[in-house]
Amino acid sequence: AILDVLRAHFNRRQDLAGRRLLITAGPTHEDLDPVRYLGNRSTGKMGIALAEAAAARGATVDLILGPTHLSTSAPGVTVIPVRTAREMHESALDRWPMATDGILCAAVADYRPESVAPEKIKKTEGDFALTLIRNPDIAADLGRDKRPDQFLVGFALETENGIENARGKLERKGLDLIVLNSPRVPGAAFGHDTNQIQLIDRNKVTSFELKAKREVADDILDRLPPNRTP
Amino acid sequence: AILDVLRAHFNRRQDLAGRRLLITAGPTHEDLDPVRYLGNRSTGKMGIALAEAAAARGATVDLILGPTHLSTSAPGVTVIPVRTAREMHESALDRWPMATDGILCAAVADYRPESVAPEKIKKTEGDFALTLIRNPDIAADLGRDKRPDQFLVGFALETENGIENARGKLERKGLDLIVLNSPRVPGAAFGHDTNQIQLIDRNKVTSFELKAKREVADDILDRLPPNRTP
Repeated sequence: AILDVLRAHFNRRQDLAGRRLLITAGPTHEDLDPVRYLGNRSTGKMGIALAEAAAARGATVDLILGPTHLSTSAPGVTVIPVRTAREMHESALDRWPMATDGILCAAVADYRPESVAPEKIKKTEGDFALTLIRNPDIAADLGRDKRPDQFLVGFALETENGIENARGKLERKGLDLIVLNSPRVPGAAFGHDTNQIQLIDRNKVTSFELKAKREVADDILDRLPPNRTP
Repeated sequence: AILDVLRAHFNRRQDLAGRRLLITAGPTHEDLDPVRYLGNRSTGKMGIALAEAAAARGATVDLILGPTHLSTSAPGVTVIPVRTAREMHESALDRWPMATDGILCAAVADYRPESVAPEKIKKTEGDFALTLIRNPDIAADLGRDKRPDQFLVGFALETENGIENARGKLERKGLDLIVLNSPRVPGAAFGHDTNQIQLIDRNKVTSFELKAKREVADDILDRLPPNRTP
């Protein structure tokens, strides 16, 4: 009986053995000039927690990490540092064919300045208009290239109409699961050590309590499809 | 003789006793919506080094610190956390009358988005124009209010025509000294533990070697006017 418990525990912990996860995390920074950039409040904590939890459960992880002061040296995790949405897009598309599963946790800038000034922009009197152009859509491009044996999880950060928007995103981009979180919930999302999520697929919405990001990571990983028995 | 050396050493170390320094440090973040912001590459290291060096030399320091993961708990330093240029401006103007000296090390955003969207801006097809408006000028406003017994140091980060632009800034804003650094020098300015500066006043330009930011801080503090003998 004790052996069964130990075995169950061990199996749970190593249930991702043989899997190779592609995880994106952190913000992206879109430069205006050598000094200024357009950024967002992501710190990478949730994605790093996902990478560490997945590695602890036996997976090999490629962690594509935007600019943040946080990182990880967990065994089994390869950190690929990037700065911009385009760098993250290129890196993710390169590695997606080798992955069994993808979890797109990064807060990727939808827009970037039309051009990057080579010198620091001098201030002038009065206002100025900054033209922003669309960045490539990593989730949509990975969803388009997804093989039937691959599983793809996206994140949605919504301040209003969360579930409706998340389900639209799921279908439009060919994702298997969406993690919805809101910066309006105290203690959740950017910068916090805790998060409160809803997991949304085509059939159902599962709502979780506020908990440590490492535990949230395990809730998400529990939804990856089980290893096929050989 | 030994006593003289010790006394000289002690005096050097406590040469800022009785002074109250106002130091600004770090970047500012100018929000577009609850998630996105316009930022810059400053980490606050140089300003924190200045605050710690000044406190070690006997000064009381008000450190107005923009959003960064770094901080200080050095005795004698009061940290006032702010996020935006307007918050930093308000905080600096409030405290300036009590200060004997000001060192404006923060990389303050010259511009902010015209309005902050209350909800996360949804992406749409195509480009969009972001209208940016001027932020208040902290250096100019402190320079305008400067009493004859106050000493005001500004920072300039220039990628081209550094000395010429710095001297223009010195005169236009009523500063006593400008610290010029460049993100183009390897190992200098944002994010590095070292910096290479030039100190510029009305009469001369002094160029220093690349060195630790704490040593750079002492070079800058050495230029504050000596305490008047009572």
